Amino acid sequence: MAEKKKPWGGRFTDAASRAAERLSASIQYDSRLYRQDIRGSRAHARMLHRMGILDAGELEAIVDGLGTIEREIREGDFEFSPYLEDIHMNIESRLTEMIGDAGRKLHTARSRNDQIALDVRLYLLDESGVIRKGMTALVETITAAADRHIEVVMPGYTHLQIAQPVRFSHHLLAYAWMFLRDLTRLDAAADAARGLPLGCGALAGVNYENDREFLREELGFDRVIPNSMDAVADRDYILDFLYFAAVLGTHLSRMGEELVLWSSAEFGYLRLADAVTTGSSIMPQKRNPDIAELLRGKTGRLYGNMVSLMTVLKGLPMAYNRDLQEDKEPLFDSIDTVKDCLEALTEMIATMTVRDDRMRRSLYDNFSTATDLADYLVMKGIPFRSSHEIVGALVKHCEESGEDFFTLPVETLKRFSPAFGDDAAGVLRPDTSPERKLSSGSTSKGEVKKQIAAVRERLRSSGTGG
Amino acid sequence: MAEKKKPWGGRFTDAASRAAERLSASIQYDSRLYRQDIRGSRAHARMLHRMGILDAGELEAIVDGLGTIEREIREGDFEFSPYLEDIHMNIESRLTEMIGDAGRKLHTARSRNDQIALDVRLYLLDESGVIRKGMTALVETITAAADRHIEVVMPGYTHLQIAQPVRFSHHLLAYAWMFLRDLTRLDAAADAARGLPLGCGALAGVNYENDREFLREELGFDRVIPNSMDAVADRDYILDFLYFAAVLGTHLSRMGEELVLWSSAEFGYLRLADAVTTGSSIMPQKRNPDIAELLRGKTGRLYGNMVSLMTVLKGLPMAYNRDLQEDKEPLFDSIDTVKDCLEALTEMIATMTVRDDRMRRSLYDNFSTATDLADYLVMKGIPFRSSHEIVGALVKHCEESGEDFFTLPVETLKRFSPAFGDDAAGVLRPDTSPERKLSSGSTSKGEVKKQIAAVRERLRSSGTGG
Amino acid sequence: MAEKKKPWGGRFTDAASRAAERLSASIQYDSRLYRQDIRGSRAHARMLHRMGILDAGELEAIVDGLGTIEREIREGDFEFSPYLEDIHMNIESRLTEMIGDAGRKLHTARSRNDQIALDVRLYLLDESGVIRKGMTALVETITAAADRHIEVVMPGYTHLQIAQPVRFSHHLLAYAWMFLRDLTRLDAAADAARGLPLGCGALAGVNYENDREFLREELGFDRVIPNSMDAVADRDYILDFLYFAAVLGTHLSRMGEELVLWSSAEFGYLRLADAVTTGSSIMPQKRNPDIAELLRGKTGRLYGNMVSLMTVLKGLPMAYNRDLQEDKEPLFDSIDTVKDCLEALTEMIATMTVRDDRMRRSLYDNFSTATDLADYLVMKGIPFRSSHEIVGALVKHCEESGEDFFTLPVETLKRFSPAFGDDAAGVLRPDTSPERKLSSGSTSKGEVKKQIAAVRERLRSSGTGG
Amino acid sequence: MAEKKKPWGGRFTDAASRAAERLSASIQYDSRLYRQDIRGSRAHARMLHRMGILDAGELEAIVDGLGTIEREIREGDFEFSPYLEDIHMNIESRLTEMIGDAGRKLHTARSRNDQIALDVRLYLLDESGVIRKGMTALVETITAAADRHIEVVMPGYTHLQIAQPVRFSHHLLAYAWMFLRDLTRLDAAADAARGLPLGCGALAGVNYENDREFLREELGFDRVIPNSMDAVADRDYILDFLYFAAVLGTHLSRMGEELVLWSSAEFGYLRLADAVTTGSSIMPQKRNPDIAELLRGKTGRLYGNMVSLMTVLKGLPMAYNRDLQEDKEPLFDSIDTVKDCLEALTEMIATMTVRDDRMRRSLYDNFSTATDLADYLVMKGIPFRSSHEIVGALVKHCEESGEDFFTLPVETLKRFSPAFGDDAAGVLRPDTSPERKLSSGSTSKGEVKKQIAAVRERLRSSGTGG
Repeated sequence: MAEKKKPWGGRFTDAASRAAERLSASIQYDSRLYRQDIRGSRAHARMLHRMGILDAGELEAIVDGLGTIEREIREGDFEFSPYLEDIHMNIESRLTEMIGDAGRKLHTARSRNDQIALDVRLYLLDESGVIRKGMTALVETITAAADRHIEVVMPGYTHLQIAQPVRFSHHLLAYAWMFLRDLTRLDAAADAARGLPLGCGALAGVNYENDREFLREELGFDRVIPNSMDAVADRDYILDFLYFAAVLGTHLSRMGEELVLWSSAEFGYLRLADAVTTGSSIMPQKRNPDIAELLRGKTGRLYGNMVSLMTVLKGLPMAYNRDLQEDKEPLFDSIDTVKDCLEALTEMIATMTVRDDRMRRSLYDNFSTATDLADYLVMKGIPFRSSHEIVGALVKHCEESGEDFFTLPVETLKRFSPAFGDDAAGVLRPDTSPERKLSSGSTSKGEVKKQIAAVRERLRSSGTGG
Repeated sequence: MAEKKKPWGGRFTDAASRAAERLSASIQYDSRLYRQDIRGSRAHARMLHRMGILDAGELEAIVDGLGTIEREIREGDFEFSPYLEDIHMNIESRLTEMIGDAGRKLHTARSRNDQIALDVRLYLLDESGVIRKGMTALVETITAAADRHIEVVMPGYTHLQIAQPVRFSHHLLAYAWMFLRDLTRLDAAADAARGLPLGCGALAGVNYENDREFLREELGFDRVIPNSMDAVADRDYILDFLYFAAVLGTHLSRMGEELVLWSSAEFGYLRLADAVTTGSSIMPQKRNPDIAELLRGKTGRLYGNMVSLMTVLKGLPMAYNRDLQEDKEPLFDSIDTVKDCLEALTEMIATMTVRDDRMRRSLYDNFSTATDLADYLVMKGIPFRSSHEIVGALVKHCEESGEDFFTLPVETLKRFSPAFGDDAAGVLRPDTSPERKLSSGSTSKGEVKKQIAAVRERLRSSGTGG
Repeated sequence: MAEKKKPWGGRFTDAASRAAERLSASIQYDSRLYRQDIRGSRAHARMLHRMGILDAGELEAIVDGLGTIEREIREGDFEFSPYLEDIHMNIESRLTEMIGDAGRKLHTARSRNDQIALDVRLYLLDESGVIRKGMTALVETITAAADRHIEVVMPGYTHLQIAQPVRFSHHLLAYAWMFLRDLTRLDAAADAARGLPLGCGALAGVNYENDREFLREELGFDRVIPNSMDAVADRDYILDFLYFAAVLGTHLSRMGEELVLWSSAEFGYLRLADAVTTGSSIMPQKRNPDIAELLRGKTGRLYGNMVSLMTVLKGLPMAYNRDLQEDKEPLFDSIDTVKDCLEALTEMIATMTVRDDRMRRSLYDNFSTATDLADYLVMKGIPFRSSHEIVGALVKHCEESGEDFFTLPVETLKRFSPAFGDDAAGVLRPDTSPERKLSSGSTSKGEVKKQIAAVRERLRSSGTGG
Repeated sequence: MAEKKKPWGGRFTDAASRAAERLSASIQYDSRLYRQDIRGSRAHARMLHRMGILDAGELEAIVDGLGTIEREIREGDFEFSPYLEDIHMNIESRLTEMIGDAGRKLHTARSRNDQIALDVRLYLLDESGVIRKGMTALVETITAAADRHIEVVMPGYTHLQIAQPVRFSHHLLAYAWMFLRDLTRLDAAADAARGLPLGCGALAGVNYENDREFLREELGFDRVIPNSMDAVADRDYILDFLYFAAVLGTHLSRMGEELVLWSSAEFGYLRLADAVTTGSSIMPQKRNPDIAELLRGKTGRLYGNMVSLMTVLKGLPMAYNRDLQEDKEPLFDSIDTVKDCLEALTEMIATMTVRDDRMRRSLYDNFSTATDLADYLVMKGIPFRSSHEIVGALVKHCEESGEDFFTLPVETLKRFSPAFGDDAAGVLRPDTSPERKLSSGSTSKGEVKKQIAAVRERLRSSGTGG
């Protein structure tokens, strides 16, 4: 490691201790910000030129030098030095090495405090765009599957007990709506990131006329942050992203859980593709839904990352504190995790085989049309609470006598209530139950088709966002 | 406790165990939803009447009965029974006791699953309105204080080291911007809550023609939730609120920390009013900033409540599961905490005494204008990194010789760099430092005034929200 | 509310604000510490008498007065005043009202800072004893069920895929070992609480000769805390308890999940007793495992409570800070939750009906003896990785041809490897598979019986703890 | 990447998707377990030899091969393949490449499920030993500093208000006791890790006679885990470590906060060494306590890591699930963080300069001996609550009149209470206040010396642990 001079080293005499170096250095993870750092420096240089602080030659040297460095890093030809602590200093030091004094002028009217805030905001915005595409693809894939399987009826569950028949599509679409809400949260995080911190200096503003409107325009931000202390101390936009990722994690874990359940021998509703399952090193017959399990398990880190940054921020006085360095690893980890999970889940949905035979078999378990029967009695004029009791007694009768609920003869029904008529038998059939659901948003075919159209419309209309 | 019959008790033979009862019962905390439950039932009854399920007499009996019950509860004349588990059953049981069979009809075409989702959404919307007012009052109070104290200059800190002089107003306004962002998050949570779940039944929709648009209109929602399973399983809107509260907690803890610091003998920047400080039972001289400490400490529960619900939701399959009962206590606790904290902080800000003499004294500590001096040299043509080194050497000189930095004679300055001119002495003065900050968003008086106007404009323009 | 004078009110002029009162007051929850507070005061009074600070008459008056107050509170005749903030002041104020100046002397040589630490430690120790009994009962109940069902063989799962046959007892006992580990953590928390804080004053010790050894003995502590600042600032023992409760919650959630799974129609391995299941207000056939779900869901608050206090403690300077008031509600909530969960789970286990017919049926799914077959080949001299591949091919053959794995004729086996002999057929039988497990700690009957004996021995030997 | 065959690949046809590969692969972080994996394989091979499963030649080939691989990895000559997923498969694949069929036999009677549990337990035990040394060094360093500075008196704080004079040593030693408690938690985590999982196979035990006692002895464990399902599903020992690290983080954050406060210009109690402070890239005068801030900030990840794994474990059914893969990164991160923090803090304490002049100056602020004066009156026979009021009035008098509290003439005192005598003046002096603290565990010099001896005794007596 070349012992380059620290940018603040003047007054200091002892070398930093090794543990202190390790705790301080961020270059091992913030090097991934190099594109954003260079983009920001380029805009800053142009602004300094407009203000007369850099002359045309200096600007050209800086812009060229930054271009060279960007290429060096991209191609793996750049040697990062932990001694130079972070991405800013690594780049600036190399720039000065290449172009001399002009490089030393680049840090005029800016501080690492506003620079790092800029880099992370730009990075978060870049990655949000990628994630937005991943989420859109996932929702499209779910909707396509819902469309494809619209005829499939399965047991709907509450308390993991078979409750009422629902369309498989209806169940899938519940997730489409969750992910659309996640998209709203992602957009909110991106909106929060669209304030320009550059030009705020260390905390109080800078002693130079600058042009933050020009920087905003150049770097594609929505607005200029109006308070310089807030600009360097604020990490809300990262929290907003980590929160988006945590709630997405909640949804991924719920879907992961269901994919695991449905892949079990006992449910048997799905067969996941080979590409997203694995075998066992010891049990030759195993076909493990590892990726579905990992979708569920990765929630841990998405929650943990959020708690991590919230803890860091608790009780910090204004303005910048070194604790804030701890914002980046949770952010990067959540970004990487979310991207992989979205891609893997999309593939899993696209390639799964639905076992509608197994779903149909389960429908004839556990009295799945009991509610339909109770509602039938209500239609015949019996108050709901009473009809609930009648059907409850009927269920108990079947449990004890072993009689099949789904084919109970009308005579038996009449023994429990004279209100049962000959049309009651039809109400016992699970496969037609969804069509008896008349309310908007229900699991009937017409309503599910409306949902599919509505989800697609939402994707279309929000397509320009992110 | 009156042994009233459980609404689902028909088939069951054993009495519930005591511990099971304690775990199950929610009436001790969900009784606070009575207004919302009754409002929802009233709308539901009207809808059932429109659909021909209730006749006019039944509707009237229900509406009157609900009115009586609402009054009984408000006036403390209602006896809640844990045996009836929750607010829905307590009210319905009393209603049936009062009006007979019509009461038994009210639960037609609805389930406790959509009913509880409705109640909590209504409650969250009601309370969000109250909290919104509290936040607005807080931001107004901060802005008024910033206006009042615009002439006060204090040390600005990074790393809790004196960094550069800033206006006290500028520092305060950093919090105004944080709380405005919190308002955005509160509004997002309220928006998330504005979907109508009623009419979705247990999970699949209901076997009745219903009119969810009528219900939406009647209850003031923005939209009807389009998927019945999602409607009963979704708790995102509660997470959104808990997240808003957690980030608000972050900001409260940062401000609490600073109020504690500033109230210390060592800083001495503030004297908090008696009404928000306490004494010690043992040390007669103490004047403890307890409320500021509690603002900081309450963050614990705001974070904890969020983790609590995120944990509950992790890995839950569709649709409703009893685990979801655990959503209410964290929500209620965060609502109560936030309301009290906002009110107490507003009062603290409104009544604090600013000790500008102490702030001024501190300005002359720790070389607070060293950056100004470095920037001065840049203006004289020296690259920033070089001027930084020159001033660093000057600081070291003062530390070692004991010479006063703020009154260094020009001759001394010139020994470190010939670029120093006679105008350098003025640059050393801390009280005029803020005016040397020329960038937008800086701590200069003009920029701070712009901020005050901008905050007020934001409050005005968002005033109709919530 | 009687406007009694605050104990520190002398110098203060304004009344506290309402929100500040609400934030400050703890009497609504710390009143549950009254027994411990009185026990501590009684011991403190005796010590003051030994030191000559109280005379015999004063001691008697105090002890009698405290006795009266304890009875008043127990019988509901005591009026708590929020104005007096906490349990200490409520009791002291009543005492002084009753016995005059002697009551005013009781606070000599102590502070609320060491007093509250004492009360909470005593309370935690009292409740730990109760919880220890609950855990012991749970482990005994699990072990008894394991003993009772030792002949029952069920599918063992990894990745929720059927992996290998295991005894139901073996599966149950896995939880016994978890709960025994929890007992170790509970004991560690109790050990941590067994240091006496009393006699440390506000933070620095007290200006009186005192006798902390006497107090320790009198109050049943193991040791005297050796640093007065640590004594009033330490909350590790509460964290230790909250951690115990959180890990117990992890285990409860795992068992809750399995009880929910096993109660589903698809698994059907268990029927939970009526007393720990509930019905549905809308679906007459439902039999919901609510209590098992709540065991799983309550984990949320057990985790949240822990995060809550960890957050409070982060970054607090020495010694006592008001933030520490926030330690009590999480502790009380976790204590109450744990007690109810243990009792409910014990009852659930004791009363569940095991459906061994359903378990047996599932054993013949999913090639549960494939590993046995691979191991058979190893015994015949084939390297493990190769035998794994042979059986993998066999499984694939059955999947594609539809042939039944468990009754494959030897001829078919031989087609895949000549090493298969006539004894291979026996290896395919799932019910005898556990007995082929020869390693210690395995699922064979002999090993499971050893486990049962070992668990019981552990309970016996640790019986005097807690 | 060489496309080596997956160990379970037999039956599978599609290649895994890229995102699925990324989610699945753990080799990028579990390669750090190579020493433990090889140590475990070596012991396993010896055991297989004893059982007659491997002959002497096979054993020798395996042991030699593993030795070669260990050297290859240590020297960076080993090419890890993500395709082979984890450390076990990378090593086994290389071994088989080197020695053929004997390598394929090594996995007999074991599974990746018990193998990974073994590796992590061994690793955790190795690292716990290192951390134990780091903690011991830290406590020794604190104690040495306490010894060195025993004459230094500083203000003791509650609520960050000056409360009573304390010895600086006393304050430091409060942290020694915290870290000693952390040592207890570390030892508990290590104890929890000392159960041998090897020999449990995938979940049910193995179809081979094995000798787990031999393995236990060979690998240095305390006991054999008695339930094979628990052995592969248990992660409590990792939670225990993460909890230890989280509470240590709490303490580090408290000390970090105080080091930051004390390094501020306003307190000025400490000057941290250059090696553990940094400068500013923009403000030449800055001397930032970055490492102290990072000690505080790193708490975030220590908390987050714990929440992360607790979340993963919530609601997981037995036995092994792929979610458990998510246990390693939090563990490794907490281990690395703790080691660096301990080393950096030790260095910071060892090299700090104590500014006793600044501490002394602060003692004469804020009436730090008011409690002493109240206690003086109690000695003269006035009840404590009354004397508290008298001194409160005296304080108010000084605040209003501006009179100096510490040099109040006796005549003034007598105006507030006739009980004041000529000896009262001595009681007002802060520097002798610690000696007036007569209780055990107080801040008097004799008591602090006892503490120093007690801490050293504790270190000595626990020295063989870990």
